[in-house]
Amino acid sequence: MAKRPHVVIVGAGFGGLAAVRALRGVDVDVTIVDRNNYHLFQPLLYQVASGLLDPSAISSPVRTIVRRSRNVDVLRAEVTGVDLTQRRVITSAETLDYDYLVIASGSVTDYFGNEDARQRSTGLKDLSEALALRSRLLTCFETASLTADADARKRLLTFAVVGAGPTGVEYSGAVAELIKHVLPKDYRRIDFTEVSVVLIEAGSRILATFAPRLSRLAARSLQRKGVRIILGQSVSGVDDAGLVLANGERIETNTVVWTAGVRATTPLAFPLESLARSERVKVTSQLHLIDHPEVFVIGDASALDQDGAVLPMLAPVAIQGGNYVGRLIAGRLKGEEIPPFHYHDKGTMATVGRGAAVAQIGPIHINGLIGWFIWIFVHLLYLVGFRNRALALWSWAWNYFFWDRPVRLIIAPSSDRAL
Amino acid sequence: MAKRPHVVIVGAGFGGLAAVRALRGVDVDVTIVDRNNYHLFQPLLYQVASGLLDPSAISSPVRTIVRRSRNVDVLRAEVTGVDLTQRRVITSAETLDYDYLVIASGSVTDYFGNEDARQRSTGLKDLSEALALRSRLLTCFETASLTADADARKRLLTFAVVGAGPTGVEYSGAVAELIKHVLPKDYRRIDFTEVSVVLIEAGSRILATFAPRLSRLAARSLQRKGVRIILGQSVSGVDDAGLVLANGERIETNTVVWTAGVRATTPLAFPLESLARSERVKVTSQLHLIDHPEVFVIGDASALDQDGAVLPMLAPVAIQGGNYVGRLIAGRLKGEEIPPFHYHDKGTMATVGRGAAVAQIGPIHINGLIGWFIWIFVHLLYLVGFRNRALALWSWAWNYFFWDRPVRLIIAPSSDRAL
Repeated sequence: MAKRPHVVIVGAGFGGLAAVRALRGVDVDVTIVDRNNYHLFQPLLYQVASGLLDPSAISSPVRTIVRRSRNVDVLRAEVTGVDLTQRRVITSAETLDYDYLVIASGSVTDYFGNEDARQRSTGLKDLSEALALRSRLLTCFETASLTADADARKRLLTFAVVGAGPTGVEYSGAVAELIKHVLPKDYRRIDFTEVSVVLIEAGSRILATFAPRLSRLAARSLQRKGVRIILGQSVSGVDDAGLVLANGERIETNTVVWTAGVRATTPLAFPLESLARSERVKVTSQLHLIDHPEVFVIGDASALDQDGAVLPMLAPVAIQGGNYVGRLIAGRLKGEEIPPFHYHDKGTMATVGRGAAVAQIGPIHINGLIGWFIWIFVHLLYLVGFRNRALALWSWAWNYFFWDRPVRLIIAPSSDRAL
Repeated sequence: MAKRPHVVIVGAGFGGLAAVRALRGVDVDVTIVDRNNYHLFQPLLYQVASGLLDPSAISSPVRTIVRRSRNVDVLRAEVTGVDLTQRRVITSAETLDYDYLVIASGSVTDYFGNEDARQRSTGLKDLSEALALRSRLLTCFETASLTADADARKRLLTFAVVGAGPTGVEYSGAVAELIKHVLPKDYRRIDFTEVSVVLIEAGSRILATFAPRLSRLAARSLQRKGVRIILGQSVSGVDDAGLVLANGERIETNTVVWTAGVRATTPLAFPLESLARSERVKVTSQLHLIDHPEVFVIGDASALDQDGAVLPMLAPVAIQGGNYVGRLIAGRLKGEEIPPFHYHDKGTMATVGRGAAVAQIGPIHINGLIGWFIWIFVHLLYLVGFRNRALALWSWAWNYFFWDRPVRLIIAPSSDRAL
């Protein structure tokens, strides 16, 4: 019996898992590699950071997700390089030979070369960061309630969010609600007029990828919650006492959350000048490298022009890309021709807090409670498994009815020396 | 208006919170100090360590719990000392003057002076340890699935639990079930006959505080799950490759969980020889220091003889002690005499796995499914808040019906340099 073609998939995000699904039952062996043992539902990470959801509600073990695909093996390892000539993936655990390679390694926070920003602010891209932010925010309140010095207290109670894309908007809205509705009951010593959330955006409006009207509605909604929005200002420096804007204004704060941008990350050692914007890898309309039809790059990691614009770094693009590549590989094995990839934009959405979201589905713009219900429906659809859906729905209902963020725990990293 | 008496409570465990509750509405100011911002329901910690419950299901923010007691302030700080003469509590944050002091600082893992054991094993007394154990167990399986060397693999797949009190028994039962029912579906490369759980007890039977018949039933139940029980052997050494028993037998393992004992921990600087067994502080029948009627020590931290035996280190003793001290302080303010403390033993119980528990309520000994239902009822009763009760009940039902441990996440400590 001939050896079956080996498909190696790098990354168990939306794209990688969609590729696994599309290869189910296909006559190949699949190995999916991820540094974590879980798939993370990144769009809800801000709800972990703001104390609404437990990590386990937005993450599921990769092995459990792919359990029913008999042709799939899971490797928990860091991918350190790819040898395109020898067709090998080098990982921290073992080296994998491949016949087909699917790179779905996503993106990381982009500090745009600002080393101070990288060292002194927190991104919001993985569970560790979300949990660290949750602890940090609560620790600031604990420390502030003991701080007599007014300046130091103000720094502790000012929370700066840099970048008003969906993550920055959703996180600042969630934090503003936590501060407005939950924490005053817990911290009676604190004067809440001293607390502020500042959202800083270099562009001219928040949620720039949405229609201007929805941006305005979202901005008004955030402002009603007490978020100060600064537009048209980039951050020129971050230091231990706060940040400085391009116009020279200083914002004194101990907490800077950096959601100003992301850049692709792949194990391919391409020179920077060969990459597209945000360091994304250029691919053909069949999502493979120009010189390597057996190497596919999908999702945030790749850049594809469609109808004159590069596809956005969004979960649906990754899912459709993964699904396409899976079908393409299956087709090639059978000698079938598959037409080029075409992304179907089913719409985008962002929550701006309890019971309010903006959604844009083609020409239809939706706002407020109806937007929120659509948001809930879509997110439940994409969460993995019944348990996580039930837990998320329960938590959202809990928040809606009790205005509560119950997961307010400061958990120190393990003191276990044996680990 | 005269200043109201200040009651400082050290520790927000079962005892400290019971004292707060008993002092509600009493004409005193209360400050409760804890190093964590949450109350931890320690009896269920093993369910976090074995991937069944999220941390937030067994912990609640202290500030939220005491929210409705208007006379209570919360201080998140480490208590570093007590000045009994000046009536002051020294903490990492500020120094507190007291009129009454309630020390409810509980206990820590006791390694009996075995420094190797302390450095190379993990206790199961706080959330960090439980989360670290969860990660470690799963990491052992991930690593083992990549390990060709049979000896190394066996070490990775052997889990040793030292001490067969309730914590050791409950944890090893939960781990055995995880290994038997859940992990084989995820780790298809691993030969599960190589996996073993070893429970080591220095005494002649497990659950020594229970009736011999219940010990036997629990042991049989663990053995059916595949737990190897070693009785009458203490651990004489722990090294990087395993542990050595008193009889010279070596158990090769990378994971040693130490539940062999606990000792009291208090900020009182008493010499060791003045303390009772397990370093517990001796108190009068009114739970105060002999020379200081204004300083109370309750729960695990104190030792009180009753009917010829010292009261056990159990949650109900702490709860009844806290409640008693609260009422005693209230009584003193009104000049009322309160009779000495008397502990009412309502029974003890331990789960040995899904759908099975042993319970001992006075002369009544219960076992199996009925024991488990009683166990569920009692634990729901003592968990704090509707949300945690609902989450715990949901998780137990989930485990019961699906034989699942859904929280199988390996989360690295934060990579956030800014924290």
